[in-house]
Amino acid sequence: MTSSSSVPEAGETARAFHALFDAISACGATAGGGITRLCASPADGEARHLFADAAREAGAEVLTDEIGNQFALFRLAGSPGAPLTMMGSHLDSQTRAGRFDGTYGVVAAASIGAALMRARRNGETFGADFCAVNWTGEEGARFRPSILGSATYAGLLRAEDALSGRDDVGITLREALGGIGFLGSDRAPPLPACYLELHVEQGLVLEKAQATIGIVTRNWGAAKVEVVFTGEQAHTGPTPMPRRRDALLAAAHLIAEVREIADRWPGRVHSSVGRIVVEPNSPNVVPARVELSVELRSADDRLLTEASLRAEAAIAEAARRAGVSASIPSRTLRPIRALPEAVCDLVSTCAEEASLRSLRMDTVAGHDAISLLGLCPTGIVFVPSVDGVAHNEAELTRPADLEAGLAVALRAAWRLCRADGSPERALLFRSPTETRGGRR
Amino acid sequence: MTSSSSVPEAGETARAFHALFDAISACGATAGGGITRLCASPADGEARHLFADAAREAGAEVLTDEIGNQFALFRLAGSPGAPLTMMGSHLDSQTRAGRFDGTYGVVAAASIGAALMRARRNGETFGADFCAVNWTGEEGARFRPSILGSATYAGLLRAEDALSGRDDVGITLREALGGIGFLGSDRAPPLPACYLELHVEQGLVLEKAQATIGIVTRNWGAAKVEVVFTGEQAHTGPTPMPRRRDALLAAAHLIAEVREIADRWPGRVHSSVGRIVVEPNSPNVVPARVELSVELRSADDRLLTEASLRAEAAIAEAARRAGVSASIPSRTLRPIRALPEAVCDLVSTCAEEASLRSLRMDTVAGHDAISLLGLCPTGIVFVPSVDGVAHNEAELTRPADLEAGLAVALRAAWRLCRADGSPERALLFRSPTETRGGRR
Repeated sequence: MTSSSSVPEAGETARAFHALFDAISACGATAGGGITRLCASPADGEARHLFADAAREAGAEVLTDEIGNQFALFRLAGSPGAPLTMMGSHLDSQTRAGRFDGTYGVVAAASIGAALMRARRNGETFGADFCAVNWTGEEGARFRPSILGSATYAGLLRAEDALSGRDDVGITLREALGGIGFLGSDRAPPLPACYLELHVEQGLVLEKAQATIGIVTRNWGAAKVEVVFTGEQAHTGPTPMPRRRDALLAAAHLIAEVREIADRWPGRVHSSVGRIVVEPNSPNVVPARVELSVELRSADDRLLTEASLRAEAAIAEAARRAGVSASIPSRTLRPIRALPEAVCDLVSTCAEEASLRSLRMDTVAGHDAISLLGLCPTGIVFVPSVDGVAHNEAELTRPADLEAGLAVALRAAWRLCRADGSPERALLFRSPTETRGGRR
Repeated sequence: MTSSSSVPEAGETARAFHALFDAISACGATAGGGITRLCASPADGEARHLFADAAREAGAEVLTDEIGNQFALFRLAGSPGAPLTMMGSHLDSQTRAGRFDGTYGVVAAASIGAALMRARRNGETFGADFCAVNWTGEEGARFRPSILGSATYAGLLRAEDALSGRDDVGITLREALGGIGFLGSDRAPPLPACYLELHVEQGLVLEKAQATIGIVTRNWGAAKVEVVFTGEQAHTGPTPMPRRRDALLAAAHLIAEVREIADRWPGRVHSSVGRIVVEPNSPNVVPARVELSVELRSADDRLLTEASLRAEAAIAEAARRAGVSASIPSRTLRPIRALPEAVCDLVSTCAEEASLRSLRMDTVAGHDAISLLGLCPTGIVFVPSVDGVAHNEAELTRPADLEAGLAVALRAAWRLCRADGSPERALLFRSPTETRGGRR
């Protein structure tokens, strides 16, 4: 390693980034300017091919594991068993969602891999390989749970269980991945020496602070409770009201109360019910069964616990009021956790070098990086979302902000790959300068 | 016409009824002992074939009109243009529903047509023809509106509009009927001189009164309002709570309030929300759009109006509380109406002759007969539903009660067909006795 080496030219990386990003944005494009690219859909398949083709063209070997995660390996170190720097996110989206969520991080990683590969060809030496990853099914829109592919890679979820999950029309993830040709058999690479995820903020913090780079130091805890209310199917006409056991009425009471829970602690607890499945869902039939997903988030353990207890009480009370029974098929808790200081410091340094204003902040949303948290040094870098709009076709991050995040991530990746993937050692480099492109 | 003629033997008619009823009950049979026979589904197609085959075998000509209504014409009068006595109901069902709702009336009509045809072959003379009808899409479970086929026949709905309606996966009624071979081109028969519908009660009135035959004198009014709440799609994580415009939260407030409206007037107003469609319906997305069906029923015009006004206010208030907008794509009102006395008196006389206890009562549920009300003399005859269970696999009417209703309807049909279809003239006959079968 020499301290006189330099990061690749940001302009060329940005051009490659925009070209691939625009091409992938066409996969599942909606009339409203967004995308519908549900996990393992044909549109997801198209996007996956574009990602893999671009990575291969840039010199990567692309592996697809049994859950469809795609790993584009850029062999920089030149020795088998070299440590790995990994960056990425997900190409799947919600229905009528924005183009940036997830895709930004995957395309940035591919462009960075290509830039490092060019640097290597130009004589740069690296101690770590680089891997750009596209994780399967982060959104949870079609297949549940969310953050599925990275959780499987991290050993938090069995591939078998994830693959046998079904979408709302009964198709399994195995069938859907098979259908688009991405049910792989490659062995996933080992855990990286460091994992970094570039993502749009999806909130208002950066915009309000007029900062460009968000350095995530903590993730909010999230308690997710699947609830099933079971009433009795009956005719909505003659059935006397006191005899009705209406599962949808119970759900209505619960949905209203879940909102009340968040309103008790303004800004400190977020809550929602985003999904509800009603049976038989006919205008003339008292609903017999309702399945819904309750979600509570907070950065305060005590509040998250108290909110969860209130939600459990609300489930029982809603069932009592409607005369139905309640069951809870699953409860999941994503705990509040800090992200490692060394990775935050590295990002902070890279932002400073690029003369960008950064801010340490929380992530409220879950990200694939959270799956790897605790298993390897893990970081998340945010760029601003205009007006905080997320999971919406109008989601926007301005090109200059996209490029700013890309430049910071490129610097971080370069340092990490020079330093055998270790964030602590990557920090020790003296500030490199861009010599090749000639612009700052 | 001679007053010494006699109604056909009830035992043979009952045997034919049970044979056909059991065969049709197998179409769409569920593990729970009920049926799922959605309108124009393959199971509906099977049931339609069984009905048509049985009617043809008994000597009927079977017509299928452009909306799939099936008319089995038993030519009893021997002269073209003879008046028509019509009986029937529907073979479609809700999801996981009972076997009796609708099917009872269709199979009874087919069996009665066969019995009258046998009587004619044995020398009986009739002044009216008999028609057993299966109306398309009464339930509204798959295609809306409910009571679709009879409303089209009655001129209340355009066939074109009904046929272009789509189910939840986008299939039109035209495609679905074409798929099962029941998109007909026959001209429907003209309005009958009298229409009578035999149906299970689906309530508790007969059972509580220990009566076997319900004579419907009035139908409850029903106000049905389709509501759309439009909010804004957003991320359930980082989006600040005060910024969320959650369409499902508005729906929850409305569903709870719709129940409150009924609870203000116990036993006098029924209400429900049985169907709700949420978009995008993903656990991590604030719902952007919710469509739901509000239904209010009452036998009191003033209450129905007051309940409807309260529902409209509740829609606006629910939208305000959740920060979303509300629209009402459709409002339909089925008015409170009396059924003609003459038909009620005829059924009453027939029940007396059969030594069955009858009761004059309301119908809260809508039936195909209501489509024809006001266009021709129209009657509805109920038999008891065990424990009032309806739109549920556990729906049950005991064989003895099925046969009691069948016997009363057979007597009424016999009298009507003898009397040129006129309920007033049918009443004038002296009590006929069953001579042929030898049992009473």
